[in-house]
Amino acid sequence: MAQKPSIPKGTRDFSPIEMAKRNYIFNTIKEVFLLYGFQQIETPAMENLSTLMGKYGEEGDKLLFKMLNSGDYLKNAPAEMLEQHDYIHLIPKISEKGLRYDLTVPFARYVVMHRNDIQFPFKRYQIQPVWRADRPQKGRYREFYQCDADVVGSDSLMNEIELVGMIDEVFKRFGINVIIKINNRKVLSGIAEVIGAPDKIVDITVAIDKIDKIGLENVNAELLEKGLSQDAVDALQPLLTLSGSNEEKLATLSTLLASSEVGMKGVEELRYVLSNSEAQQPKGVVELDVSLARGLNYYTGTIIEVKAKDVAIGSITGGGRYDNLTGVFGMPGTSGVGISFGADRIYDVLNTLELYPKDTLASTKVLFVNFGEKEGAQSLQYVMKLRANGIPAEIYPDSTKMKKQMSYANDKNVAYVAMVGETEMANGTIALKCMETGEQENLTINEVISKLK
Amino acid sequence: MAQKPSIPKGTRDFSPIEMAKRNYIFNTIKEVFLLYGFQQIETPAMENLSTLMGKYGEEGDKLLFKMLNSGDYLKNAPAEMLEQHDYIHLIPKISEKGLRYDLTVPFARYVVMHRNDIQFPFKRYQIQPVWRADRPQKGRYREFYQCDADVVGSDSLMNEIELVGMIDEVFKRFGINVIIKINNRKVLSGIAEVIGAPDKIVDITVAIDKIDKIGLENVNAELLEKGLSQDAVDALQPLLTLSGSNEEKLATLSTLLASSEVGMKGVEELRYVLSNSEAQQPKGVVELDVSLARGLNYYTGTIIEVKAKDVAIGSITGGGRYDNLTGVFGMPGTSGVGISFGADRIYDVLNTLELYPKDTLASTKVLFVNFGEKEGAQSLQYVMKLRANGIPAEIYPDSTKMKKQMSYANDKNVAYVAMVGETEMANGTIALKCMETGEQENLTINEVISKLK
Repeated sequence: MAQKPSIPKGTRDFSPIEMAKRNYIFNTIKEVFLLYGFQQIETPAMENLSTLMGKYGEEGDKLLFKMLNSGDYLKNAPAEMLEQHDYIHLIPKISEKGLRYDLTVPFARYVVMHRNDIQFPFKRYQIQPVWRADRPQKGRYREFYQCDADVVGSDSLMNEIELVGMIDEVFKRFGINVIIKINNRKVLSGIAEVIGAPDKIVDITVAIDKIDKIGLENVNAELLEKGLSQDAVDALQPLLTLSGSNEEKLATLSTLLASSEVGMKGVEELRYVLSNSEAQQPKGVVELDVSLARGLNYYTGTIIEVKAKDVAIGSITGGGRYDNLTGVFGMPGTSGVGISFGADRIYDVLNTLELYPKDTLASTKVLFVNFGEKEGAQSLQYVMKLRANGIPAEIYPDSTKMKKQMSYANDKNVAYVAMVGETEMANGTIALKCMETGEQENLTINEVISKLK
Repeated sequence: MAQKPSIPKGTRDFSPIEMAKRNYIFNTIKEVFLLYGFQQIETPAMENLSTLMGKYGEEGDKLLFKMLNSGDYLKNAPAEMLEQHDYIHLIPKISEKGLRYDLTVPFARYVVMHRNDIQFPFKRYQIQPVWRADRPQKGRYREFYQCDADVVGSDSLMNEIELVGMIDEVFKRFGINVIIKINNRKVLSGIAEVIGAPDKIVDITVAIDKIDKIGLENVNAELLEKGLSQDAVDALQPLLTLSGSNEEKLATLSTLLASSEVGMKGVEELRYVLSNSEAQQPKGVVELDVSLARGLNYYTGTIIEVKAKDVAIGSITGGGRYDNLTGVFGMPGTSGVGISFGADRIYDVLNTLELYPKDTLASTKVLFVNFGEKEGAQSLQYVMKLRANGIPAEIYPDSTKMKKQMSYANDKNVAYVAMVGETEMANGTIALKCMETGEQENLTINEVISKLK
């Protein structure tokens, strides 16, 4: 019956120390969400496949984890599909539910289902795991947490400013230096328009996005290859080499996009968001980056991406505005804007820079060594008094070797070890040893309480 | 493309108010766990089916949610199984992973996998959802949270006392009056032994468990039906009608079980756990209940069950000692003892008795009404100052009708509404309205901060 256990590839166990670090991350983000008036919701891990399918592209559909129906799941399976091993078309016959792939689609579904109970604008946050049947690799998991905050039902750009403020506050608290990159989908549309290639917006933005990686020349070559005229590529150059302050970039954009209504709208939005964000005196750098082209399938206005300055890792937070979140579920015209913190990458950054506050990893404050039944009973009384005063305390449950008990205290990163032996029993005292300094004092229980409270 | 969205039956969305209540429950339990020196771990939602199957009985295997393999899941499916619709034997061919059914088996798997990194005794807690393909009904869900605390690697009965103390502390904090029922599996074994029916222990305990529901006579009839002799049933009577104080019950048990070694061991353990638990002066009633026979498949010593005194609902917490948690994964001889809080039932009890502290449902402290761009910009400055002082504050993002903004404030249960109109702009003040009393004051931002901090 014995078997060597393992866990599915791409998934992880989290040990107490890892959990302490993760809780620090989640709690910090939560505190900021609450400070800004966002409210938490949760949705089920499983959604109907009809809710999930078709929302993430063909590739996304494949990456959904699908649940086998309960009982005789083959009862609606057509014989010929089975015969022909038609595993693709068989899926809806044998599976009705899947694990959520992100928090956005479940949120859209939530908004539509509960529209009559929701007071808009609805500022919600959600911190839950999502699952993707991706090929696991370093830093990419099949189960990972997303931390999303969105506002739906308000077109105001003040929401964008608030989100930038929230991003800045979170990373200030973490002590991570960041660049908050901002762009606007309308500017990208404007660019495609003024260079006379409005149908090539995706190709253009994909290429722009690669400048840092492959360089200007290769980008130009790729654009020509994609069917852009030499004139169009020439017209694009000032945009590809845009530099200077945000103000300077905006000025250049204003000139270049003057003939495009949508482009100028984008410039105006960018100007508002950038200037008001800067007015908040953020700790991070807020930077207009016209090469930022993430989420082009769904973002319709502001696009946001955050990078850590001191660690070479991809985007650690991202977001943007989408104009029709809930349309696919029959509720058109609801605009939303949101951000998503990448908890796993933030975890990696905090580990690399060793930025965890010391008390993050603290656990029990005092461990009482167990010297036997009588001493143990007395120690348990003390432990209860400490707890009644809000001090995390415990007693080693077995009266085993001192060495084993001390090694337990060490491993658990306990701050103090308390010893109540024969002498202390007689004196009514406790020998309290500080694990960091090694100092030891003889104190009454009340003295211990005032010392540690 | 539009579709009316729904969620899988037996699953739930949690709104901001529901989340506030649930967070209150989880946070209260967590605080007590930490106070007692328990450390958090998390395990993946998905486990290999080889880890889960065979651990919950035949019925449990059926109730596991199983994930369809990625890609061509039919590639290892034997043609004849497909032809014969042999959906049972086909499962392992097309599915390798399932959702966890409880937190105990994943914990056992965790302990075995990480045995070299764990310092025993290991006091872990885990608060995560579990999934069961049960028929949904009132109060029974397909996705629900378990809150487990276990100690593994220590035989000491001090752990039992600590767990009882922890249970009592949790329900004291909730304000729920409870009866903490305690039994011992060894006593049940002893009973079966002394009435000469050691092979009938399951039948006997199942019957004993029904006394409250069907009455003594029917229980006796059932026992005879199950093949117990009339002598055995007669011998059982004093146990079935056991009454009096814990001390009196223990005395009766001692007499009745005198000839059974295992029975007397059970009595001794019970006496220790009961007397030491009572010595802690619990708020709840700690009661020996020999009819308590839960989890007989795995519990080997102490059995614990908690009922709410003032609400007719099943067990709201349960637990016990199991001697061989990890044996099935090739690591025999590791004793454990643990408890599991039923968050969903506690939620129902707290709702029924309306026991939530008032500030549980508080959200944003101050909402600034938005009177337009200029006033909005000034208000945003104030909002930022409040947040810098740790006061949750927000501004309504759109300068829309006052009525809509007030209705938003009401719905969100905001404590204060702040108004900065033309007059206030000129005076450098804020009109602060308390939503509960309706009182309104004109204050400077610093006065608002000291008032609300």
